[in-house]
Amino acid sequence: MSSKNAFYAQSGGVTSVINASACGVIETSRKNPDKIGKVFAGLNGIIGALSEELIDTSRESDADIAALKNTPAGAFGSCRFKLKSLQENRREYERLIEVFKAHDIGYFFYNGGGDSADTCFKVSQLSATLGFPVQAIHIPKTVDNDLPITDNCPGFGSVAKYIAVSALEASFDVSSMAKTSTKVFILEVMGRHAGWIAAAGGLIEDYGIPVILLFPEVDFDHDKFISAVQAKVDAHGYCTVVVSEGARNADGSFLAEQGTRDAFGHAQLGGVAPVVANMIKTALGHKFHWAVADYLQRSARHIASASDLEQAYALGQAGVEMALAGKNAIMPTINRISNNPYQWEIGSADLAEVANVEKTMPLDFITPNGFGITDKCREYLYPLIQGEAYPDYDEHGMPRYVVLKNELIDRKLENFDL
Amino acid sequence: MSSKNAFYAQSGGVTSVINASACGVIETSRKNPDKIGKVFAGLNGIIGALSEELIDTSRESDADIAALKNTPAGAFGSCRFKLKSLQENRREYERLIEVFKAHDIGYFFYNGGGDSADTCFKVSQLSATLGFPVQAIHIPKTVDNDLPITDNCPGFGSVAKYIAVSALEASFDVSSMAKTSTKVFILEVMGRHAGWIAAAGGLIEDYGIPVILLFPEVDFDHDKFISAVQAKVDAHGYCTVVVSEGARNADGSFLAEQGTRDAFGHAQLGGVAPVVANMIKTALGHKFHWAVADYLQRSARHIASASDLEQAYALGQAGVEMALAGKNAIMPTINRISNNPYQWEIGSADLAEVANVEKTMPLDFITPNGFGITDKCREYLYPLIQGEAYPDYDEHGMPRYVVLKNELIDRKLENFDL
Repeated sequence: MSSKNAFYAQSGGVTSVINASACGVIETSRKNPDKIGKVFAGLNGIIGALSEELIDTSRESDADIAALKNTPAGAFGSCRFKLKSLQENRREYERLIEVFKAHDIGYFFYNGGGDSADTCFKVSQLSATLGFPVQAIHIPKTVDNDLPITDNCPGFGSVAKYIAVSALEASFDVSSMAKTSTKVFILEVMGRHAGWIAAAGGLIEDYGIPVILLFPEVDFDHDKFISAVQAKVDAHGYCTVVVSEGARNADGSFLAEQGTRDAFGHAQLGGVAPVVANMIKTALGHKFHWAVADYLQRSARHIASASDLEQAYALGQAGVEMALAGKNAIMPTINRISNNPYQWEIGSADLAEVANVEKTMPLDFITPNGFGITDKCREYLYPLIQGEAYPDYDEHGMPRYVVLKNELIDRKLENFDL
Repeated sequence: MSSKNAFYAQSGGVTSVINASACGVIETSRKNPDKIGKVFAGLNGIIGALSEELIDTSRESDADIAALKNTPAGAFGSCRFKLKSLQENRREYERLIEVFKAHDIGYFFYNGGGDSADTCFKVSQLSATLGFPVQAIHIPKTVDNDLPITDNCPGFGSVAKYIAVSALEASFDVSSMAKTSTKVFILEVMGRHAGWIAAAGGLIEDYGIPVILLFPEVDFDHDKFISAVQAKVDAHGYCTVVVSEGARNADGSFLAEQGTRDAFGHAQLGGVAPVVANMIKTALGHKFHWAVADYLQRSARHIASASDLEQAYALGQAGVEMALAGKNAIMPTINRISNNPYQWEIGSADLAEVANVEKTMPLDFITPNGFGITDKCREYLYPLIQGEAYPDYDEHGMPRYVVLKNELIDRKLENFDL
């Protein structure tokens, strides 16, 4: 096999461990200089390939590349940019191949969720058709945990750990004060289509916390919810509610959309937590507080799960190893071997079976009343939040997160209008 | 000195390290059994004394008391209950003394902020008048950092660390995605009267992050703010805004009050972040995200500052030592000796000088444009967030936080109506 360059890009919402996958890709490539030349990274994801803005990662020191493992977010930039279908916009795919050809790129490592798996698959197919075959490997990443075949997705475990720990801590706070102050605490978490992240909040029940979960998978029933909250307050003196941003009414509308308006009457975007808080205030009159974790949850490298971090790195590494073994249109996966002790191994999935398939939360992970998680769900979740992978801190008490040089290589092609 | 029992109570909003002060009080008391009998803790704070609900901490194991050091929130319960003035409700003070007398309590350790310092002072005065002198020691605690004389208040350093770390991480996230997604991220932090916590968010400027702070101390100027945000977006591609919940308009009204209403037109409580987000959307059209840290910030024991934790314990210990030295109506303080290296020692303040005095942020801590912090502020803040005092984690990956038995002693007095 002659040496070809590689292209790596980050796609979609970033996570606290996606850079660990980048680290796995780059470090493994550096160990195989006879087969992989340079690793170019797309500035701001796939857009960097289309616009021929390629970062030369060979100009980064080994130490800085290693530091990626402990740095949250997307070190090369990511983007929300879904390539259209081949029918709609074939020129975008052709442009990608042109750029790959111009820079002698034979490996395409795309680090993202469902949409990027689809793009990756199409690039693999089209590049062969166009006579410049590129080995396209998808490295899974998504806090939404919704990719098929793999047991779980890097990024999710760390968000789950952040939410479980934070919900526990805030519940201790509420418990302390409930006699004269806040009785209901509402924590809004990510998850527009699936309740995986809210489910992690359910783990605190094992630690004695009265908690109610609101999932997108379960139609919201106002009266049932209010009764459940009051029952917890009666029994424990307080109640914690963990609500998915995607919690929905029976008619499919988001709870978050149903109400808040600014002084001018404009519908206000975001924020299901205050909507739920107001329901509780109106129906029960309890003092409440609410928090919206938003980006804090998916960037919280300071409390990343060690098992998540290890898997994120291992999948980047495995992606390169699969490419070196001649694989194409494939995604390395996590296969769970056992829960206790937690054991897993790297597997693989054909991209044809990954692209455009969304894995939702199994219904037997949710309790019959719709407000909690089952033991089966607990057994699934705990291994994913195992261990603490702390970053280093500087003398000021701030985490040492690396900012790369991100120097672009010279362009060889004409401009391309996105 | 003959042996007397002690009474300890937690007051007001809890913190991630107030239990470390409790640990300091109890462990130091246990080392002096000849002078201090039992330490009783008020169930739910001072209310526990009024209602004669006294927790017998001697029934807790040494290991559980030691674990308080690593457990957030108030292990005995806290309350928002301010005793009225002596003129208005002398019977509450008399009741306290009766309870102290009935249970042979000669030491009163009150762990709280400004209001509790005031109560502590009055108890000390009145107990002497009533012929049952109690040594009243105030142990400082408040995330608001607004107690006078002491250089800083336990609880604040850990919130400051949480906010600085979280704002840095979320800004890395926004920076990664700004090309095609969120350009302005707004983080709402605590601080109704003072901008200390928002100031901590300003530390991320040292790490290359474009950040704008909104303090309660600075009249909000809409146009100036919008211009400042746009200038940061122009220069960096994105901008982070850290806003105090108490950010105010020039007329004194809270920004948070100025607008959001639910579907029924009811003013919605809380949430300055969405108000600021909507301003940005309306004036600049940028895609935004917002987070409200709420209780997560003050309960985040998982990222507590080591210097904060050490001081919280030391102040509890010092309170007992001062009591044993015969002191009364006093508060142990932190005296800063040097910034670099950070050195401090325990001092003391007379409660007469502490009660009802609020320390606001020095104006020379805020930049002339009102949106940032000065070097003087940085030098003040960094030592307070130094070091990471991690709790232990269990095999599941969850922090080991202790829940005490909290067994009450038998009552000796009649009921008392609060």
